[in-house]
Amino acid sequence: MTSNVSISSAEKGILIVLSGPSGVGKGTVCKALRECSSDIIYSVSATTREPRQGEVDGVNYFFKSREQFQQLIEQDQMLEWAEYVGNYYGTPRKFVEDTLASGKDIILEIEVQGALKVKQKFPEGVFIFLLPPSLTELESRIVGRGTETEDVIRSRMSVAVEEIALMEHYDYAIVNDQVDLACQRIRSILTAERCRKDRMVSKIQHWMAEVKK
Amino acid sequence: MTSNVSISSAEKGILIVLSGPSGVGKGTVCKALRECSSDIIYSVSATTREPRQGEVDGVNYFFKSREQFQQLIEQDQMLEWAEYVGNYYGTPRKFVEDTLASGKDIILEIEVQGALKVKQKFPEGVFIFLLPPSLTELESRIVGRGTETEDVIRSRMSVAVEEIALMEHYDYAIVNDQVDLACQRIRSILTAERCRKDRMVSKIQHWMAEVKK
Repeated sequence: MTSNVSISSAEKGILIVLSGPSGVGKGTVCKALRECSSDIIYSVSATTREPRQGEVDGVNYFFKSREQFQQLIEQDQMLEWAEYVGNYYGTPRKFVEDTLASGKDIILEIEVQGALKVKQKFPEGVFIFLLPPSLTELESRIVGRGTETEDVIRSRMSVAVEEIALMEHYDYAIVNDQVDLACQRIRSILTAERCRKDRMVSKIQHWMAEVKK
Repeated sequence: MTSNVSISSAEKGILIVLSGPSGVGKGTVCKALRECSSDIIYSVSATTREPRQGEVDGVNYFFKSREQFQQLIEQDQMLEWAEYVGNYYGTPRKFVEDTLASGKDIILEIEVQGALKVKQKFPEGVFIFLLPPSLTELESRIVGRGTETEDVIRSRMSVAVEEIALMEHYDYAIVNDQVDLACQRIRSILTAERCRKDRMVSKIQHWMAEVKK
């Protein structure tokens, strides 16, 4: 009468995009997440800058020549890219797509504008915005970096506030009050997304087929 | 320049509805959740049956006369109700609404049809469907209850499969393979829902207002 087949797990992975204003601590949270989450793959960026000592191609970055990078842009093989201090940086589409196709979840840590570009290409991704506990706290983190003048700080805070306004395009917002709590929230969001009805329906479709036999 | 005001928490609570087919273990999961989650309020049902020894009005049930219960139905004060073995059972709207208004999250453990009635009145609720690990496992749990004949078991399985098809109206589906894992998944869903962008936007609205000053 009933099928002995249980929940299937053959399913595409989930793309998680972690973003937020400069100074909010995206890198720190992502590093901590990496240490406690072996089930998430971390996207590797491409760059045209020279490898530093110890950096490994395909691990720290995909190192590309300017010509290679420009070709990847032309072939729509970059989910997003930007030029910074004379070098290109970007997210190769292939690594992300291959990871998702293998059923593994992948996380991109990326600045706010880049994340919105990724959203155009992967609207089904899970977009998480990292918030400071308060604007004062964000300001003190920016000041705390050291040598910035008051004008630079004011300008960076102004950019940060504009970036926070872009949070409306995201699915979730989490407060980075403590790094371990922020990590737990991201893990909870991933667990919840894995339990979304649409994902689960496709996993038990064979039950219904079996019963109808 | 910046506000010292941090994230505000003055916000309505979240309504969580836990449902699933008969025999899946809703009661067991809800009891375990209760033991590990002091931050969630458990909805108290109303009934016309007599209190059993030790049962306290407003704790185990709201005990009502048939006249009182019928009046509550007429006044649209029951989110859902059903008659079972000559007695009314239902979910009083006021207790749920008062809890949500106080900012606390509330969970309803309820059968599948009742949950869909609640959804008509609270579409913003978070509807979680509890699944067995397999149909065979569900069947053996129903058989395991003891004295049912083969006809009764077949009929109950048929109802269960019809109920599982109603999962499409829910937001999430979780597998009750282990009670503690099911509890963790519900806790993760609650954490994720608390981090939904729309909820968070309303919490930081005063930041934007402050910056514009």
